[in-house]
Amino acid sequence: MPIDIVVDAMGSDKAPEPEIRGAILAARQYDVRVHLAGPEDILRPLLRQHLRGAHLPVFIVPASEWITMDDKAAQAVRTKRDSTMRIGLKMVREGLASHHGPTPHGHGHHHHGPSGPGKAAGFFTAGNTGAAMATAKMVLGMLSGVDRPALATILPTVRGIPSLLLDVGANVDSDPDNLVQFAVMGHMYAQNVLKIPNPRVGLLSIGEEDSKGNSITRDTLPLLRALPGINFIGNVEGRDLFNGHADVSVCDGFVGNVALKTCEGTAKLVTVSLREALKSTVTSQVGALLSRKAFDDFKKRLDYSEYGGAPLLGVRGVCIVGHGSSNEKAIMNGIRVAAEFAQAEVNSAIEAALHTA
Amino acid sequence: MPIDIVVDAMGSDKAPEPEIRGAILAARQYDVRVHLAGPEDILRPLLRQHLRGAHLPVFIVPASEWITMDDKAAQAVRTKRDSTMRIGLKMVREGLASHHGPTPHGHGHHHHGPSGPGKAAGFFTAGNTGAAMATAKMVLGMLSGVDRPALATILPTVRGIPSLLLDVGANVDSDPDNLVQFAVMGHMYAQNVLKIPNPRVGLLSIGEEDSKGNSITRDTLPLLRALPGINFIGNVEGRDLFNGHADVSVCDGFVGNVALKTCEGTAKLVTVSLREALKSTVTSQVGALLSRKAFDDFKKRLDYSEYGGAPLLGVRGVCIVGHGSSNEKAIMNGIRVAAEFAQAEVNSAIEAALHTA
Repeated sequence: MPIDIVVDAMGSDKAPEPEIRGAILAARQYDVRVHLAGPEDILRPLLRQHLRGAHLPVFIVPASEWITMDDKAAQAVRTKRDSTMRIGLKMVREGLASHHGPTPHGHGHHHHGPSGPGKAAGFFTAGNTGAAMATAKMVLGMLSGVDRPALATILPTVRGIPSLLLDVGANVDSDPDNLVQFAVMGHMYAQNVLKIPNPRVGLLSIGEEDSKGNSITRDTLPLLRALPGINFIGNVEGRDLFNGHADVSVCDGFVGNVALKTCEGTAKLVTVSLREALKSTVTSQVGALLSRKAFDDFKKRLDYSEYGGAPLLGVRGVCIVGHGSSNEKAIMNGIRVAAEFAQAEVNSAIEAALHTA
Repeated sequence: MPIDIVVDAMGSDKAPEPEIRGAILAARQYDVRVHLAGPEDILRPLLRQHLRGAHLPVFIVPASEWITMDDKAAQAVRTKRDSTMRIGLKMVREGLASHHGPTPHGHGHHHHGPSGPGKAAGFFTAGNTGAAMATAKMVLGMLSGVDRPALATILPTVRGIPSLLLDVGANVDSDPDNLVQFAVMGHMYAQNVLKIPNPRVGLLSIGEEDSKGNSITRDTLPLLRALPGINFIGNVEGRDLFNGHADVSVCDGFVGNVALKTCEGTAKLVTVSLREALKSTVTSQVGALLSRKAFDDFKKRLDYSEYGGAPLLGVRGVCIVGHGSSNEKAIMNGIRVAAEFAQAEVNSAIEAALHTA
């Protein structure tokens, strides 16, 4: 039975084109029905144009407003009552209320009625991360036993197996209890969605020894060591994020956000430097041409559009946040990840684990 | 007049070879006299061998012990009373006590006498960072107005101008006053040693807006805005570390250490991925051969042995800490940087600025 995923059609930097194309790709490739939340007058003609008469389960959910990257998250969530994010996440809430049952669709259209815009098993947006987190928290609420949601990013590693880093959202000044909850959530996601058996969980710090760290990590370490059911390997360092030493690395959201953006900065520096170096000699230009396939492979390996976005863990429902620069492939992958997340029943596993912990 | 720099001859992973070779290179190239602190029985024959009869101002300072990378910093500093680091930093202290005057040398040998091992204007080590910081703090003491020393690393940027990130040492749980002191120290080093006029100083955070950050950065921001004589540009993000947006980025030592090691991890991932991609096809192998010069240029640009190590700011004297993997070129550059730091009179500028702030 196909799974219903709702997509913020107005999220990405180039919205709604990548969203519409990505929805069509996903509907063609996976067993999903995709609901595009956005203004019908904008989406309808574009969807028709891109479908080119194909009969695919891609629908429009009317939403008159959308939150931009420049909007202040807290304010936008309060004032834009009919935003794509809010409408989309309401569908996820409705889907949960009806015990994961999808809405019967088929007419290619939703109506705002007393029953709301419909039901979905998961939501994807490539829009404003802060607004997505705030809206998800407000509309879906938190899982039992979780105090704060955490945004988990998927990092490529030297071993080729992806690893998870959380929180990279904006949960600043996390306390040890928050970090323990992040560890449980990361463990469950890695095991059930990334399909890593017995994932190794590390605490991001500044040295391997237990004595290394700041006051928060030093207080968190014994709690994680005592946590049942988690394969905790102790402290890990920034350089371990990419060597596959840990499958899940846990940190405060300030630290994780700095680390993630530092990765982006480093990768960009390396790319720019390499391009300039290659341009500088004729021989190099020939070399670059010949090694183009290698470069394409390399870029693909590091390209996180392959991974489809970051799951927001801890809210009562499925919410995946993609990069603002997401292209159609990234949107397609985001929809796939949302479907996998929904099917894996991660959230009930997190609640169960936190109740026994 | 040549400047006296003392080098921990037993610091790097491959010590003392890189130190001896690096000292000789520095003595040949710059107006310095280099003092190698270490066990005379090990150093003497190697120095003679590498000098090959050349008359260069490279001397040996006897030190019977050295601190390894595996030593616990605090313990090693207490128990190894005749360590290379302690002997070296004592020479810096003596050098300051005699108003920056160098010791008259010329016999190529030092004696432990009542007057100590001699005098130097700066110290370089590629050894245990924690031990170097602890020893420097103990032997040299702190500058007036500075509560904690900060290790400042030099990062390459897309623009080609280096930038400074501090603290990347282990000053965890820094408070706003610490961060303000780091900003003043970074400003003075960038201006006087890196020769960047009116350096832009940023506070490493998770968004550009003043409201973004954790409790420490939000409390620090107004203090930095009110600081006279500093070109403070507000919050900067992890990705800004390499785009040259700020010349000096200030952060807590936990955050800075995670960021720095994340850079290393990312750069390694990129390098490994690229090498594997290039290996995968015959065409690519040819391409790689042809573009070798470009790769060499690229690696050189990112290679931080070019920058010669990280200055430890805030202690009463000049101490530069290099990477454990330093080669002879890195050691040579570290000696050069120590000399530049000593000649720039950064420390008196820091004290003056903190007294007026």
